[in-house]
Amino acid sequence: MGEQWNRTEEQFMNYVKEMSQYGEAISLMAWDLRTYAPKNGVEGRSDVIATLSQKVHQMATSDEMKGYIEALKGHTKDEIIQKSIEECEKEYNKHSKIPSDEYKEYVSLQAKSEAIWEEAKEKNDFDMYRPYLEKMVEYNKRFAEYWGYEKHIYNALLDNFEPGVTVDVLDEVFPAVRKSLTDLLQQIQKSDVHPDPSLLTGHFPKEQQEAFSLEILNRMGYNFEGGRLDETVHPFAIDLNQGDVRVTTKYDEKDFRTAVFGTIHEGGHALYEQNISPKLAYTPLAGGTSMGIHESQSLFWENFVSRTEAFWKNHYELFLSHAPESFQHVKFEDFYRAVNEVKPSFIRIEADELTYCLHIMVRYELEKALINDEIEVKDLPELWNDKMEEYLGIRPKNDQEGVLQDVHWSGGAFGYFPSYALGYMYAAQFHNTMKKDLDVEEVIGKGDFEQIRKWLTENIHQYGKMKKPLEILEGVTNEKLNPTYLVDHLREKYQKIYQF
Amino acid sequence: MGEQWNRTEEQFMNYVKEMSQYGEAISLMAWDLRTYAPKNGVEGRSDVIATLSQKVHQMATSDEMKGYIEALKGHTKDEIIQKSIEECEKEYNKHSKIPSDEYKEYVSLQAKSEAIWEEAKEKNDFDMYRPYLEKMVEYNKRFAEYWGYEKHIYNALLDNFEPGVTVDVLDEVFPAVRKSLTDLLQQIQKSDVHPDPSLLTGHFPKEQQEAFSLEILNRMGYNFEGGRLDETVHPFAIDLNQGDVRVTTKYDEKDFRTAVFGTIHEGGHALYEQNISPKLAYTPLAGGTSMGIHESQSLFWENFVSRTEAFWKNHYELFLSHAPESFQHVKFEDFYRAVNEVKPSFIRIEADELTYCLHIMVRYELEKALINDEIEVKDLPELWNDKMEEYLGIRPKNDQEGVLQDVHWSGGAFGYFPSYALGYMYAAQFHNTMKKDLDVEEVIGKGDFEQIRKWLTENIHQYGKMKKPLEILEGVTNEKLNPTYLVDHLREKYQKIYQF
Repeated sequence: MGEQWNRTEEQFMNYVKEMSQYGEAISLMAWDLRTYAPKNGVEGRSDVIATLSQKVHQMATSDEMKGYIEALKGHTKDEIIQKSIEECEKEYNKHSKIPSDEYKEYVSLQAKSEAIWEEAKEKNDFDMYRPYLEKMVEYNKRFAEYWGYEKHIYNALLDNFEPGVTVDVLDEVFPAVRKSLTDLLQQIQKSDVHPDPSLLTGHFPKEQQEAFSLEILNRMGYNFEGGRLDETVHPFAIDLNQGDVRVTTKYDEKDFRTAVFGTIHEGGHALYEQNISPKLAYTPLAGGTSMGIHESQSLFWENFVSRTEAFWKNHYELFLSHAPESFQHVKFEDFYRAVNEVKPSFIRIEADELTYCLHIMVRYELEKALINDEIEVKDLPELWNDKMEEYLGIRPKNDQEGVLQDVHWSGGAFGYFPSYALGYMYAAQFHNTMKKDLDVEEVIGKGDFEQIRKWLTENIHQYGKMKKPLEILEGVTNEKLNPTYLVDHLREKYQKIYQF
Repeated sequence: MGEQWNRTEEQFMNYVKEMSQYGEAISLMAWDLRTYAPKNGVEGRSDVIATLSQKVHQMATSDEMKGYIEALKGHTKDEIIQKSIEECEKEYNKHSKIPSDEYKEYVSLQAKSEAIWEEAKEKNDFDMYRPYLEKMVEYNKRFAEYWGYEKHIYNALLDNFEPGVTVDVLDEVFPAVRKSLTDLLQQIQKSDVHPDPSLLTGHFPKEQQEAFSLEILNRMGYNFEGGRLDETVHPFAIDLNQGDVRVTTKYDEKDFRTAVFGTIHEGGHALYEQNISPKLAYTPLAGGTSMGIHESQSLFWENFVSRTEAFWKNHYELFLSHAPESFQHVKFEDFYRAVNEVKPSFIRIEADELTYCLHIMVRYELEKALINDEIEVKDLPELWNDKMEEYLGIRPKNDQEGVLQDVHWSGGAFGYFPSYALGYMYAAQFHNTMKKDLDVEEVIGKGDFEQIRKWLTENIHQYGKMKKPLEILEGVTNEKLNPTYLVDHLREKYQKIYQF
């Protein structure tokens, strides 16, 4: 590889490699800050991250980069270089269209706003956060104008997280899904079956949770020679380089579900990064193609593998071998029902498989309206609570469990939330296609995850950013985004559990 | 601070801050490689370290740096800036005098040579390593000529590790020390007292060793809010920034001494870095002033605190509370004697407090002769063994336990070894002065280490590189390098133990 590159191509590839290398250093510092870094070093370390990030930003927007784009775009025979140039051009345009003073103000406001949000959440005080959120909305509207868009201003923001997906797509799909899910929720709530999650909350020592989680990660095909599992407060997976993709988790000794399902979820993200083609290493293409496709991978493992009956039938003995005494009398059927309880709740990240998407709808509708000047920041708390009541049937008592719960908006991440719901739909759609190639239930039942991992690698992982999200989706499933599979999957699953 | 800086001063300080920040990222990557990094990521990570190191090297030798040196040297009223400029100038000269092609060849050879050394050591094959070592000697001789020196070519290399110390100084001090130590060794070997180290090698679970080590680190005043203790293969301490100075250790369940004395040793290094004046943060002065002074700090804690009778009298109960059953019957006197056994052995890093310096003399004499063309690389194995026999009375059976044991020469670190022996002498000399201010034995006996830590911080730590090593030594002790204190300390200690 690279033998046939001309001088400019070689210089460009070295240039983006250097950018990736700075990125790797930044990622390691971020991992360290969230796992092991002692308190007193945090401030200095954050400044180092800022310095290196600025360096990467400078390289992404430099005249040298502009030169490469002009010289190579459409003038290279190497597909990796062509796609890399396209990625770089997108970044370049995004940044060069924002006046640099304005961008600097924004970055500085971002940090401030996130800090204030954290305090406001703790104090349950929306008003102290409001002026910052208003500014974040203003900046994002202005940036969207700089970037340009077709039809809807919100499309410019969506493009940052899920390129190719537009308001038209979402507005066609989301309301239908919402309707189906709320119908399903009502049927579940009318059911006489009442799973008992209290069965699951016995004391479960951390070491034993860890041993079980490691065993499952291992069975999923997560490569420990190219990764590790550590403890953190807000779990994440992170790729440092292709040979070093780490998973983190959190242990709640009163509820093993946090660690077990959390580790499997992050393990799904990590499998994606571990299995990108080595040809893409240290290029701008060496990463998941979008937030939504990434989430489809974590959710595939979490919902379509580890929350299934087949999975627990196969792993219940292993689970019990790690679980403390108090779990030994829990019958399999009760266990399976309990880990799949559906119950509307206020906090998105604690939501069950069914209501999760409804939380996303609330956010999507509100942020789209904010960016489109249809509503004002000051009215958000009320509007949030109204929508929660409408879709989930419960009304937050305060903003802490309402509009203040998520960090995203405080950092200006508008257009991000839809990715989560898209991830659910993609996962269901992939699952449906996979069933044509594999007897998925049987494979899960046998614990033969390598077949699943291989299918995902072959169809999705390997491409990194070589393919756009919808290109992946349509290429794999031979159809456009189709939410039917998610709704069908949930209906079938819960009909069986709740017997309606 | 910084309020009164002019524009050039401010730019310079930002410039060196950025260099330090790259250094911090490099250090974290190095720490990670030696503690937690999974195998498959190592190659990529090493390349990232190389890229960032090159960046720092470019900044240290840039025209911009040259400009700052010319503009500010002798033209600033700020002492920190003046000293920083002096450090930068030294680096600048060192690098700019070497033709860049030659330096590049050297760096590439270095990596190769270290790898070959590792293999040669494993295979006990000096001949495969010899051509690389010959080249490393040649390069270092050439570099020494580029850099220039007074009197002895080896002085140019010494200056890299212990600025101010010359062959004249060493040749005045080392032979006398050697004579005293070999005399002392003979007296010990004639003694009827025979410590029994087998008392110490009972099974000692890692977790219990760790708990005891953490407790001692804590008592030493090591700040865990600004550091942590991790496990590694070759223990080290590393400063990432002033609020994040980490210690690593190794647990041998058959010999607790590795972890306990090792942790205390590295803890001594860490205390130095943790207590440098915050005014020096992110300047070229934010670090220990030399290898020798650094080693004086680790050795102070290891030998003048933790290997003393007073220390063990105070901590023996704590020790036993962590130690397994098999230690409970060991009498204090036998324990203390056993941890202080003197016994000539082949491997430097396993040597006792007395014979360690003799190992260093062997290396110093050989490397000085090599650089001065008095001996040839091919004759090293024989010469090494001859000197070991002469000074320690034992002859290595092979090169693995002889000339191949240390990594230093393979990486071109000639002039480094004397720092270890200097560290011993500095420590003894500091100890002698400290005794005038504190009743050190009583303080240790009470476990009141804070007084010792404070004294070391006030007299040594705080200055970082603001003072040169001999400036520190002479400033604190009011005399020149004087090896009498080390010899006296050892004689007094071993007379008591070995009763001669």
